[in-house]
Amino acid sequence: MNMRRAFYIGRFQPFHLGHYSIINSIARDVDELVIGIGSAQKSHEPRNPFTAGERVMMIRHALEDADTTHYAIPIEDLQRNAVWVSHIISMTPPFDIVYSNNPLVIQLFREVGIEVRQPPMYHRNNGYSGREIRRRMIANEDWKSLVPPAVADVIEEIDGVGRMKQISKTDID
Amino acid sequence: MNMRRAFYIGRFQPFHLGHYSIINSIARDVDELVIGIGSAQKSHEPRNPFTAGERVMMIRHALEDADTTHYAIPIEDLQRNAVWVSHIISMTPPFDIVYSNNPLVIQLFREVGIEVRQPPMYHRNNGYSGREIRRRMIANEDWKSLVPPAVADVIEEIDGVGRMKQISKTDID
Amino acid sequence: MNMRRAFYIGRFQPFHLGHYSIINSIARDVDELVIGIGSAQKSHEPRNPFTAGERVMMIRHALEDADTTHYAIPIEDLQRNAVWVSHIISMTPPFDIVYSNNPLVIQLFREVGIEVRQPPMYHRNNGYSGREIRRRMIANEDWKSLVPPAVADVIEEIDGVGRMKQISKTDID
Amino acid sequence: MNMRRAFYIGRFQPFHLGHYSIINSIARDVDELVIGIGSAQKSHEPRNPFTAGERVMMIRHALEDADTTHYAIPIEDLQRNAVWVSHIISMTPPFDIVYSNNPLVIQLFREVGIEVRQPPMYHRNNGYSGREIRRRMIANEDWKSLVPPAVADVIEEIDGVGRMKQISKTDID
Amino acid sequence: MNMRRAFYIGRFQPFHLGHYSIINSIARDVDELVIGIGSAQKSHEPRNPFTAGERVMMIRHALEDADTTHYAIPIEDLQRNAVWVSHIISMTPPFDIVYSNNPLVIQLFREVGIEVRQPPMYHRNNGYSGREIRRRMIANEDWKSLVPPAVADVIEEIDGVGRMKQISKTDID
Amino acid sequence: MNMRRAFYIGRFQPFHLGHYSIINSIARDVDELVIGIGSAQKSHEPRNPFTAGERVMMIRHALEDADTTHYAIPIEDLQRNAVWVSHIISMTPPFDIVYSNNPLVIQLFREVGIEVRQPPMYHRNNGYSGREIRRRMIANEDWKSLVPPAVADVIEEIDGVGRMKQISKTDID
Repeated sequence: MNMRRAFYIGRFQPFHLGHYSIINSIARDVDELVIGIGSAQKSHEPRNPFTAGERVMMIRHALEDADTTHYAIPIEDLQRNAVWVSHIISMTPPFDIVYSNNPLVIQLFREVGIEVRQPPMYHRNNGYSGREIRRRMIANEDWKSLVPPAVADVIEEIDGVGRMKQISKTDID
Repeated sequence: MNMRRAFYIGRFQPFHLGHYSIINSIARDVDELVIGIGSAQKSHEPRNPFTAGERVMMIRHALEDADTTHYAIPIEDLQRNAVWVSHIISMTPPFDIVYSNNPLVIQLFREVGIEVRQPPMYHRNNGYSGREIRRRMIANEDWKSLVPPAVADVIEEIDGVGRMKQISKTDID
Repeated sequence: MNMRRAFYIGRFQPFHLGHYSIINSIARDVDELVIGIGSAQKSHEPRNPFTAGERVMMIRHALEDADTTHYAIPIEDLQRNAVWVSHIISMTPPFDIVYSNNPLVIQLFREVGIEVRQPPMYHRNNGYSGREIRRRMIANEDWKSLVPPAVADVIEEIDGVGRMKQISKTDID
Repeated sequence: MNMRRAFYIGRFQPFHLGHYSIINSIARDVDELVIGIGSAQKSHEPRNPFTAGERVMMIRHALEDADTTHYAIPIEDLQRNAVWVSHIISMTPPFDIVYSNNPLVIQLFREVGIEVRQPPMYHRNNGYSGREIRRRMIANEDWKSLVPPAVADVIEEIDGVGRMKQISKTDID
Repeated sequence: MNMRRAFYIGRFQPFHLGHYSIINSIARDVDELVIGIGSAQKSHEPRNPFTAGERVMMIRHALEDADTTHYAIPIEDLQRNAVWVSHIISMTPPFDIVYSNNPLVIQLFREVGIEVRQPPMYHRNNGYSGREIRRRMIANEDWKSLVPPAVADVIEEIDGVGRMKQISKTDID
Repeated sequence: MNMRRAFYIGRFQPFHLGHYSIINSIARDVDELVIGIGSAQKSHEPRNPFTAGERVMMIRHALEDADTTHYAIPIEDLQRNAVWVSHIISMTPPFDIVYSNNPLVIQLFREVGIEVRQPPMYHRNNGYSGREIRRRMIANEDWKSLVPPAVADVIEEIDGVGRMKQISKTDID
């Protein structure tokens, strides 16, 4: 099987149109794509509201019509950067190339000699960032235009906005 | 046994008169009270100076004369919000209702369908907060008036103020 | 979306025709199937030779032509049975029903009120068990007839038999 | 407070009349007793069927009429013998003396200079052991005569015998 | 063996001339020195760029010509202050005295009755701090004058400055 | 620095003449030797009686007069074979070659392309094994002739035989 498989990782809190456009652009270069769902053990936190399972749903539904075969794999944090690449490799189908704009991810893969490419990030100018989407959810501003429709459906089904608002309330002590 | 058992959780760093008044108000509605001592594995930190064992002592001595049966149970953090409720349930006698003002605790229990009530928090106006008490310990201001006398005794016995001051010194690097 | 989604978990060391026939039989009753890859953090052990990523590959390739949508999700052990069901739920798309013949899995899901069905296990009579396959690999006996052809390919690509033999050698001390 | 506090630890799977008689004999020598519930994170295993919370219930109900003040504290395993004594000390009210017949517990406390006494174990001759009770539960033999009546009540309430039988079924692979 | 052995702990990110001068001053008072490399599991973080192994190299090379026997021991964090001293003791040769200026380290050892001395810290006035060195690496300022030549060699060999710069880039989300 | 550095790992429970002769034979081929002390977090178990710190002492004293520079580094278990090599690499100075007779260690290093050599094991015929030494300690048979004199001294200083006997007593339940 002389196919080309790429790895792309994110926290996807939530999966948005920026991720979607990056994946589409990667898909043009490879046969299969492994999507790592980082910090899989985290949820119900202001920066990480959604569970890994909910994020698997978002990704699978958003990419339903994509031509490229993709694998959505939850990856738990190990809190040990020096073994992180091995951890990724053990949890995923083998890949030839990594796409990432995260400086640490780039450094870790390069140190072990794996090729890393940086996908274009034009989309951040347009608010396509998890942080911005989470802020809008709390502020009752429009966030649905920043995610694929299938993701908005998943978030509504689980009342993700209600959860986001509740866990963002401050508590003292 | 047709009894009503409630669950109430806090870090109790330290146990103060605000906690005491909440427990008294809960006690009027239930037969037994399970008191979860959160972040049980933490101690000797500016925000968490006391060990779980020291906090068990504070609670047991402060509630010595209470009529309601109570259980003081240390609960270690799992760092996985999605399994936290199951973790609580596995460590405690079964309960019917949760009392909490913590937004995350409220969300987590409600998502699995357990009733949560919010006890009145009038006391925070009066300085009854762990943060304020820890600040006063370091600043040599009066803190004893904010805790039950039995708690002040426990803290003195272990030289809790000395510990508080020492671990709050800043270190660089 | 009024669809019916089932959950089925195994260690898949390796994925064999017994698993394959169970999945086919489950597929007749549901719309989607979540396949949990248990003990995901284990590999290179006599009972657990393959990594989670290798097992994802086996499953995806073996089910390439299946009609039912399936999700292959690595699940790491938490070593806490009491929170295991919550852990599963947090890592997977939501499901209505569990298929399992593992007595502990059955007990844990039933205690929280989730329906469990036991798929037929006729295949064990025919040697379709991970233990038997691993034994044959070491003994140079035929094992390929017990797994889907795609799984045999994956195992050959990674020299799984060589690994199996090497890690099964005994060491003293 | 010139009181004498003892520490006694067990897994209490389940709490039985042997434990009960040891505690009564310790109680004659001390003012307060801290009961550590070991391997608190384990449950639903053939050797550890009951959760920590269920064991807290057993102990509290069985000792309801005891004169000595006691604390029942769940203690999670750390899997590091060298720090185990510190872990115990951090989770419990301070104690002067340890009662144990477990060779490792005796060694660990003695190495740090804490006095350990070995309570009489006459009861094991009479079947008062967790292993024997668990065996009888599975074999449909009488086990209730080996535990305090309050413990039998707790086990019945949670259908502990049903759980014990189910998780003891063997599974291959 | 009537020798005097001391313990000194740091993160050594990186090992610098301040550490070097402290170790020289301790060496005058003791026969052997155990150097604990704290947060051993951390690396590739802005505050902790170097692995434990890299830090072992720095220390061993920098002290090559020292007369005092020293042991460089990686110490992983346990995230439980109450057992930290036991953890240290279990990982190191026995010592009589601790040298530290870290307020928490001082408190933890003193609580268990181990003598702690505070070495002079005159050097911080001169920029001999890990934070300052890491800042200079990123800013392309002179940092080599703050570390022993052998440490500069190790850092160059692994392109530590390149790593430092890369992992310090900010990423959003 | 064009030097050749080797890695050798063992549990060293305790360090014995078999280890000593292997190290001497490796030393002829390399400039420096990194000695990994495996299962560093374990102690006070029948198979792992000694702490990592005690094992560091044994190794350093036994090799006091060796010409080859050596590093004794405690290595904690991660319970994840797939990341074990990365873990080793992160905790140790860089090495070119591994010496091991452990089948799993050989497999793990070879899978990532690191050269492994198997040192001669003639010594096991002569009782030079940890298991045999631990057995003799309990049975009051001669064990000192199997370890370097410096190791016998360390074990005596900590009453290692007393510990070995105590923790080997059986306990029921």
